[in-house]
Amino acid sequence: MIAFVNNYFLDEDKATLQIGDLAIHRGYGVFDFFRIRNNVPLFLDDYLDRFFSSAALMRLQPNQTRDQLTAIIFELILKNNLGESGVKLILTGGYSPDSYEPVAPNLVILQQKLQVPQTGSFTTGVKVITHEYQRDLPSVKSINYLMGVWLQQKVKEQHAADVLYYKHGVISELPRANVFMVTQDQRIVTPSHNILYGITRKKLLELAATKYTTELRSVDIEEIKNAAEVFMTSTTKRLLPITQLDDVVIGNGKAGPVTRLLNTAFINMEEELLQNELRRV
Amino acid sequence: MIAFVNNYFLDEDKATLQIGDLAIHRGYGVFDFFRIRNNVPLFLDDYLDRFFSSAALMRLQPNQTRDQLTAIIFELILKNNLGESGVKLILTGGYSPDSYEPVAPNLVILQQKLQVPQTGSFTTGVKVITHEYQRDLPSVKSINYLMGVWLQQKVKEQHAADVLYYKHGVISELPRANVFMVTQDQRIVTPSHNILYGITRKKLLELAATKYTTELRSVDIEEIKNAAEVFMTSTTKRLLPITQLDDVVIGNGKAGPVTRLLNTAFINMEEELLQNELRRV
Repeated sequence: MIAFVNNYFLDEDKATLQIGDLAIHRGYGVFDFFRIRNNVPLFLDDYLDRFFSSAALMRLQPNQTRDQLTAIIFELILKNNLGESGVKLILTGGYSPDSYEPVAPNLVILQQKLQVPQTGSFTTGVKVITHEYQRDLPSVKSINYLMGVWLQQKVKEQHAADVLYYKHGVISELPRANVFMVTQDQRIVTPSHNILYGITRKKLLELAATKYTTELRSVDIEEIKNAAEVFMTSTTKRLLPITQLDDVVIGNGKAGPVTRLLNTAFINMEEELLQNELRRV
Repeated sequence: MIAFVNNYFLDEDKATLQIGDLAIHRGYGVFDFFRIRNNVPLFLDDYLDRFFSSAALMRLQPNQTRDQLTAIIFELILKNNLGESGVKLILTGGYSPDSYEPVAPNLVILQQKLQVPQTGSFTTGVKVITHEYQRDLPSVKSINYLMGVWLQQKVKEQHAADVLYYKHGVISELPRANVFMVTQDQRIVTPSHNILYGITRKKLLELAATKYTTELRSVDIEEIKNAAEVFMTSTTKRLLPITQLDDVVIGNGKAGPVTRLLNTAFINMEEELLQNELRRV
């Protein structure tokens, strides 16, 4: 696999950062991640918007313009010619002389085969546990996953697939996904604050609004446990039903009808976008 | 400068980690830092205790035993032969195949000249601002400095030297230092919870207890602003007076008598330890 570090394409096995980098010393950096199908990056504009927004909020000034970065991404995709895959952009605090103040960032781009959810996991859904936590600078896609990674042991011990954060009884997000609920009267509700603004979340909200009432607001942990359906959204997973929250089974414990309908609509929308892009080329 | 990465000593300029490392992807790792004088690492046992404790709490299993790590540290110090300096140990989540689950850690050791406080800063002390924040897993010396690094801009805008964290009105620590106050009746008080247990803090508490009443307890932000003296402790700075907290001048705005006495006692204790070590060799 070919990767890109700062100014060069190189074999991923040889792609390195010097040990003075601020990600290694202080965990300081931002990233983003989008999917590739037929060498087409999906929703690239949205992901680049967020990448540059994260960088600016973290006071990191990329060395590449948006046009330069776009050109590098397309060149990398063509070099690897992988088909269904993901591209990750990482921008770190750079080689800081005092190991504290960010300087000119280091840019890393890598492409990887997609880790798709196991077959059947959409139908059965997954169990998610809850944990009281609020990410720092939540609207920034920072590389700080201290809590998410650390909680993996608890997640496994409880035979769960992931964790939903809440604070003072109000839910926010999963470490790598947004959360939605379908109320008993079929409104589509997702937290409005203290979250990362997911691109899949945004696209799904646009889709859902054509069919349902959508609400962006504060959601209590007790309310979501009494929802008709619950699902998460992420770039890798698209929609994935959450059929158990802690000890509470949601609905009938399987993917609900609204979640299935929205999932199909999302896949169709993505397919249409892809075909349009492929016709354009 | 010679560094050490996993199994090899090599020139620091050539010392790298591959881009798959979990510090780069998820900011996941621990570290520690201690001072070297005359090629003697000061309080090494305490720092190694904390390093292995941080690793265990973060579920990272170093590839080296404590004895092996100690031998590597001494070999590195002799190779560099730097005199007054610092040694940093970093242990990351390793080359994780899914970029999320920690695996066999990567160990990085580097030695650097010491960034000592500016001459005169002990006498005048420094201004520190306050910010509401609580570090995740505070007893772990993790590499997560997202907030500390991000706040540097605010620190500079307010012409301050550093920031003191508090939560719900109770103070904890600075990003890279512990905090002490001397009350009007000369008791030495330092926060007991939600902090990193600093080695300089520990050594100073032992020293202070021979001369004063010491208290480890919860400290309100209003109480510390009314203290007779305030100072921070850190490996690099030893003791450094805080003579202004936000807009409040502490005491007479200069290093107070108790801080000066404790600083002298600390330097003498360190000197005695160093001479004993040098005689032993």
